[in-house]
Amino acid sequence: MTKIESKIKHSNTDVLIIGAGPSGLMAATWLARTGVPFRIIDKRSNKIFSGQADGLQSRTLEVFQSFSGSTFDMRGLDSAWKMANHMNEFCFWSPDETGKLVRSSRIPDSIPGISRFQQIVIHQGYIEKWFDETIKTFSDGKSKVERPFLPISLDIDESKVEDKDAYAVKVLVKDLSKDAVADPEQFNSNVANGLYRQFEGDQDKFYTNIADIENDPNVKLDDYEVINCKYVLGADGAHSWVRKQLGIEVEGESTDFVWGVLDSVPITDFPDIRHRCAIHSVDSGSVMIIPRENDLVRLYIQLKEVPRDPSTTSGTSGANSKGRIDRSKITPELILKNAQDILKPFKFEIEDIEWFTGYQIGQRVSPKFDKFNRVFISGDACHTHSPKAGQGMNVSMMDTFNLGFKLALVCKGLAKFDILKTYESERIQVARELIAFDHKLSRLFSGKPMIPNSTVIQEGVDMDEFHRVFQKGGEFASGTTVNYGESSLIDLSATSPVDEDGRSFSLVATNIPVGRRLETTLIESQADGRVIHIVDRTLSDGRFRVLIFSGDVHTHPSNLKILDEFNTFFESNKHFGKKFTPVNAFDNSVIDVITIHGSRRHDVELFDFPEFTRPVDYKNRLDYWRLYTGVDTTYHQGDIDAYEAYGIDKKEGAIIVVRPDGYVAKVTGFNIRGLEDIDKYFNKFLIPQTTNVLTPKDKSSNDRDRFVKPLLAV
Amino acid sequence: MTKIESKIKHSNTDVLIIGAGPSGLMAATWLARTGVPFRIIDKRSNKIFSGQADGLQSRTLEVFQSFSGSTFDMRGLDSAWKMANHMNEFCFWSPDETGKLVRSSRIPDSIPGISRFQQIVIHQGYIEKWFDETIKTFSDGKSKVERPFLPISLDIDESKVEDKDAYAVKVLVKDLSKDAVADPEQFNSNVANGLYRQFEGDQDKFYTNIADIENDPNVKLDDYEVINCKYVLGADGAHSWVRKQLGIEVEGESTDFVWGVLDSVPITDFPDIRHRCAIHSVDSGSVMIIPRENDLVRLYIQLKEVPRDPSTTSGTSGANSKGRIDRSKITPELILKNAQDILKPFKFEIEDIEWFTGYQIGQRVSPKFDKFNRVFISGDACHTHSPKAGQGMNVSMMDTFNLGFKLALVCKGLAKFDILKTYESERIQVARELIAFDHKLSRLFSGKPMIPNSTVIQEGVDMDEFHRVFQKGGEFASGTTVNYGESSLIDLSATSPVDEDGRSFSLVATNIPVGRRLETTLIESQADGRVIHIVDRTLSDGRFRVLIFSGDVHTHPSNLKILDEFNTFFESNKHFGKKFTPVNAFDNSVIDVITIHGSRRHDVELFDFPEFTRPVDYKNRLDYWRLYTGVDTTYHQGDIDAYEAYGIDKKEGAIIVVRPDGYVAKVTGFNIRGLEDIDKYFNKFLIPQTTNVLTPKDKSSNDRDRFVKPLLAV
Repeated sequence: MTKIESKIKHSNTDVLIIGAGPSGLMAATWLARTGVPFRIIDKRSNKIFSGQADGLQSRTLEVFQSFSGSTFDMRGLDSAWKMANHMNEFCFWSPDETGKLVRSSRIPDSIPGISRFQQIVIHQGYIEKWFDETIKTFSDGKSKVERPFLPISLDIDESKVEDKDAYAVKVLVKDLSKDAVADPEQFNSNVANGLYRQFEGDQDKFYTNIADIENDPNVKLDDYEVINCKYVLGADGAHSWVRKQLGIEVEGESTDFVWGVLDSVPITDFPDIRHRCAIHSVDSGSVMIIPRENDLVRLYIQLKEVPRDPSTTSGTSGANSKGRIDRSKITPELILKNAQDILKPFKFEIEDIEWFTGYQIGQRVSPKFDKFNRVFISGDACHTHSPKAGQGMNVSMMDTFNLGFKLALVCKGLAKFDILKTYESERIQVARELIAFDHKLSRLFSGKPMIPNSTVIQEGVDMDEFHRVFQKGGEFASGTTVNYGESSLIDLSATSPVDEDGRSFSLVATNIPVGRRLETTLIESQADGRVIHIVDRTLSDGRFRVLIFSGDVHTHPSNLKILDEFNTFFESNKHFGKKFTPVNAFDNSVIDVITIHGSRRHDVELFDFPEFTRPVDYKNRLDYWRLYTGVDTTYHQGDIDAYEAYGIDKKEGAIIVVRPDGYVAKVTGFNIRGLEDIDKYFNKFLIPQTTNVLTPKDKSSNDRDRFVKPLLAV
Repeated sequence: MTKIESKIKHSNTDVLIIGAGPSGLMAATWLARTGVPFRIIDKRSNKIFSGQADGLQSRTLEVFQSFSGSTFDMRGLDSAWKMANHMNEFCFWSPDETGKLVRSSRIPDSIPGISRFQQIVIHQGYIEKWFDETIKTFSDGKSKVERPFLPISLDIDESKVEDKDAYAVKVLVKDLSKDAVADPEQFNSNVANGLYRQFEGDQDKFYTNIADIENDPNVKLDDYEVINCKYVLGADGAHSWVRKQLGIEVEGESTDFVWGVLDSVPITDFPDIRHRCAIHSVDSGSVMIIPRENDLVRLYIQLKEVPRDPSTTSGTSGANSKGRIDRSKITPELILKNAQDILKPFKFEIEDIEWFTGYQIGQRVSPKFDKFNRVFISGDACHTHSPKAGQGMNVSMMDTFNLGFKLALVCKGLAKFDILKTYESERIQVARELIAFDHKLSRLFSGKPMIPNSTVIQEGVDMDEFHRVFQKGGEFASGTTVNYGESSLIDLSATSPVDEDGRSFSLVATNIPVGRRLETTLIESQADGRVIHIVDRTLSDGRFRVLIFSGDVHTHPSNLKILDEFNTFFESNKHFGKKFTPVNAFDNSVIDVITIHGSRRHDVELFDFPEFTRPVDYKNRLDYWRLYTGVDTTYHQGDIDAYEAYGIDKKEGAIIVVRPDGYVAKVTGFNIRGLEDIDKYFNKFLIPQTTNVLTPKDKSSNDRDRFVKPLLAV
C-alpha cells in the first residue's frame, strides 16, 4: 500500500456492481435476497423518470414474479403486471396494390400458451423504482444504489484469483456528489429526452492511478474510496468502462442505424394506435408503434437524414465509418414529420410530448463476458442491437439473473468457484442468437415493401415473410425458450439428442426440456387443498429444488414403499439431503425437496406419507408445505394434471432437479438410483458443510420465518 | 359561544369518523378516494398488531379490489389476497356410532363460482395497516387516523339539520396523548391478548359539558378541540359511545355466550389442521378450527365454566342477567384444555402462543342506524353476534362501504340530502338477516351431536342438518347475495316479483338481479384487445356507470342506428349525459357511460361507432376506454360472452345502471325510452350542475390523470 493509498478510505465487499440500470439492479436483487454483502454504484446522480427501454417480455415477468411470490408484502417487481400497459395484438400495415396503406395482418403480440404472462410495456423509470423497493425489502433497508459514484481504476491481483476467499479486485471510486459532472447535460432540454452527452471518458478527468493523487495537493481525499472486492460486475452500458478495463473489444456490424424515438399522446384517426404496429410505407420508411401506459404511444423510426459529425470517431472497433451522428439535430419535429409521412393518409398530430431521443447503434456482441471469473460484464456491455423486438433490457436482466445466484452460492461457501464459468458459456450463446435475430428483423423492417399485384414489378421486402419472421420470432422474443447446454449445472445425461428447437428430454418426463426454465403448472397442497402454480412454490430464493413426482400412490401402493426407502436416504448424512446443508440450518435451506404425488387429495391422507415429505423442525412443528398432489378436480380451478402437463407416467413417476433460477438441471427416474444420480450431480459443484452457521440466538430470531427465509437469505 | 368555548381550538370538517377499526377505516377510504374533507379519530394509542377478527369474505375482497383496481401503485387493500391464508375446505368432524371422532363430511369453504375471490384469513392488524396505506395514497398523504383522541360530547343543532351546508353537529374531543389512559391495560400480559379493559365510561373522567371546563383552572385547554361537522359516523364498537349519545338501545338476546379464542402454532397429528373444521365431541363441547397465516391456527371454543362477576351489570338493554364474566380467569391453558378434550384421541400441543382472548357477546341489533341523517352508527355499534361465521368485520366494513359513497355524493353537492336515508333501510335488513343466521348456527354448533345408529337413543343436533345449514349459509356468508330493496337509489320498476332468494330481474337481462352487486364477467377492449373483468372497469371511485349493451352491431346494423340516436341524446345539456356534471369537468366525472357491443372485435372498427362511445377531451385526445366487446374468442383467455353471462339478447341489447358501490340500480331496454327512464332515475336524486368546479389551472394540473381521477376524486 502506498503512503497516499493508506490515507484513503478502504472497505471490503463481496461483490461490487458498477451501473444501476436494470442489469445491475437484477444482480443486486439476487444478492440482497440471498444475504451476500454487496454494493452497487452508478455515476448518474438521478434515476430515470421517463422514456428509455420499456418492453417486458414473458420470461422477465416470470422472473419478477419469482422474487416476490406470495411471501413478501412489498411494492416491488410484482407491480409490473398490474401497472404496465398490456400489449395484446401486433398489427401489420403496408401498401395494397393501389399503394393505399392497409392493415395486412394481425397476430397476438405474445404467443398464446407460452407463459402465464404476456408482453407488457412501461417506462424504465418504474422498473428501476421497483427494483429499488425490492432491494430495500430484501436487505431490510440496508442496501441501496450509491450515486453519483464514478469508478476510476480497477486492478485484479492475479496471484489471488484462485483463492476463493480473497478480495482479489481493487476498485478506486470517486464520490461525484460535489462535482457538477454528475448531472449530464441534455440537448433540447425543454422536453425530457434521452440525448444525454455520453459519459465515456469521464474518468479521464480524474486520476486513474492512486499514486498520482499524492502529487496534487488540491485533491480532496475524502471523495475517494478504495473498494476491495471478491467480484466485480460491470453493468455499465454499451460504452462499458469495465469492459474497457478488461481490454475486451466488441465485435460486430460496422453499419450503424440511427433511430428516433418519441413518446407522446397522439391525436389520430389511425384505428390501431393502441396496438403494437409495424407500418411500411411505399417510400417514406417504416415505423413501429408501441402503445404505452397513461395513453402514451411510442414511435420507433429509423431516421435516414441525420447530419453526422465527422470529427467524432468511436473507440469501439469497426464502427462509425461515417462518424457519430449530431444528436442536437434530432428533434421531436423531425421524428414527428417522419411519422406523419409514413402514416399518410391518416392524421397524426401531437398535443403532449413526454420524451424523445435519437441514437445510433450497431449490432455487436462481446467475445468475452468475464476475466478470471472475477470481473464480469453484462447487458449492453455485452450486446447491442436495434430496439425493434424489445429485447435489450430483457436480455440484460436475464444475464444477471443467471449470474446472480451463482455468485451467491460461491460467496456463501456453498458451491465451488468454477460454477462461475457457466455464466459466460450460458449467456454468450443467447447474445449471439439475439444478434442474429435482430439482424434478420432489421433487414426486413428497414427495407421497402414489395407491393402485391403491383403493375410495376418491384424489388422489396416480402410482407408475408416479414409477418412469418415476426410470428416465429415471438417465441425467441418471449425469452421462455432459452436452452442452456451441458455444464456442471446442467446434466443432459440420459436425455434425447437435441431437437430442432434446441430441446432435450428424458424418457420419464417427456414434456420437460432439460436446460430450459421449468414451465409452470398447477399443483394442490395435500395439507390445505390450496391450488398454486408450481413456480410459486419454487421461488428465486437461492435454493435448488428436487421435485419428487411419486406417481399415484393410491392406485400403486408400491410407490409408497419407494418413498419409504427415500426416507432412509434423506436421513443419511452422506447424501444431499443433509450433506450440503450447514449443520444446524433448517433442512431445506440449500436443497428444498418437494413431493408431488399423483393421487386425488381425498384418496390419501397427509400421514400416509413418510416423514421426509412432512418433516418437523426442532420444536416438533410440522412443515405442511412439502407435499402436494398434481392431479385432482379442484373446487375453484377445474381439473389439474401436472403429470400430463409434464409427460410423467402416473405409475413410473420421475424426479426433477431445478436450479435456483428455475432452469431444469436434471431429470431422473423415481427410484433410489435416481436419487443417487442426483447426489452425484450435486457432488460435482456443492461443498459439503460441516459447521453451524446459525447461533442458537439467530435461529430463534428467525424462527417465525422458518418457511419463508431459507438459509441463503439469512 | 360561551367565553371558555371561544378559547378552545375550533375546526370544521365535512365528516368526523369516531373509531378507526375496519368499519371506520372503510368510510375513511371512500372519503379519501372522493376527496371529501374528513377526520378519523380513535381513542386507542396503538394499532392492533395481532389477533382480533380475521376472516375476509368474497364480497369484502371484491370491494378491496374495487378500490385499487389496476390504477394505483400502492401497498394497500390489494395485498390481502396475496398475503392472507386461503381457506379451501371446510371439514366436519363428529363421533361415529362407536363414539370415535371421525371426519363426517367435507365441503368447499367458499361456494365454487360465487365470486372470483374465496374466503381468506389474516389478522386484523394487517387489514388496518392496508387501510392506512390506502387512505394515505388516496389523500396524497394528507389524511390519517388521529390517535389517541377521545370524544367527550356530541351536540346536534336540530335547527340546522335540514340545511345541507350547515355544520350541524358539534363534537368536543380531547387529545389523550398526554394521558396514561390511552394505553389500555391487558390481563395476562405475558402473552399478547385481547382482554382489554373496556373503554366504556372513559368519557366520565372528563368534562362532558364545555362550560364546565371553565370552572376548573387546572384544565389544559390545548388538549381540547371542538370539531364542527356536517356528519358524524360512530364506528366505535359494541359499546358505542356515539350510539349512547343518540339514545339508541340495542335489542336482542338476553343470553350471552362466552367464547375463548387462541392463536398458536399447534403440534398435532390431527390431519385437517390446515382446513377450517367444525368439531363436535360427544360431551366435551365443540371447537371451530381456522388455519391462518404463518402456520398459525385459531381455535374458537365456547367456554362453559367461566366465573362471572356478579357486581358488573352492563348498560346494554336486556343482557347480562348473569353478570359479566371475569375476564382474568380466561387463560390460554383453559382454552387449550378445552381443545384437547374435544380433539381426543388426537394429540394437540402448543409450542408458541401468538394471541388469545375471551369474550362474552350477545346477538343484538340496533333498531336505528342514524339520527337526523346527520349522525350514523355502523359495524359492531349496530350488530353483535358470535364469531363462528366470520361475519362481524365483513358486515361492519360493508355498512360503511354502503354509507361512504352516499356521504361523498351529498358532501360534494352532487346528490340530494335524502339519499342518506337509504343507509339505514339497506343495512338494517342485512343486520337482521345476520342475527337470524347466527342464531340458527349457534344452536347447531353449541348443541351436543346426535350420534348416528347409536344403541342409546340420543337427543342432539343432527349433524346432517348442521352440514346443510353451513353449506346453505355459505351463500349468505360470502356477502355476495345481499339484495337492496326499492329506494331512491334502486329502481325495481319493470322487474319480476322478488323470488325466494330475494332476487328481481328485468326481462332484458335475465341473469342480472336488480339491487344486487353486479357480478363480474370478462369484456375485451375494442381499442387494444385487452381482456378485463368488467368490475375492474367500474371501480369504486364515486361514479355511477351506465353500461350500454348495444348488441351485435355487425349482424344487426340497425343497432348502430340506435347508437347514433344515443349520440344526439348525450350531446344534449338537458339529459344525464351532461346535466349532472359540473360544467368544465371531464364528461364522465359523475356518470361514466360505457358501451359494450356484442360483435367480435375484428368484425368492427373503433370508428364505426358514434363519438359518445369514444369521446375526445378539450385537447382532442380520444378516450379509448369507453368501448368494449362482450363477445369474442380471445388470445389468452378463451371464449368470452358477457351477453350470455348476463342473459342479454344479442339483437335486443339492454342498459344497466350501476351505483358507485357496484350494486345494480336499474335495467332498461336498449332504446331511447330506456335512456329516458334512466334520466328520470337520476333526476330523482342528482342535482343539476351549473357551475365550473375546476379552474383552468386545476384542470391542467390534473390533465395527465384524466382517465384516472374522475371529478369525485379531484
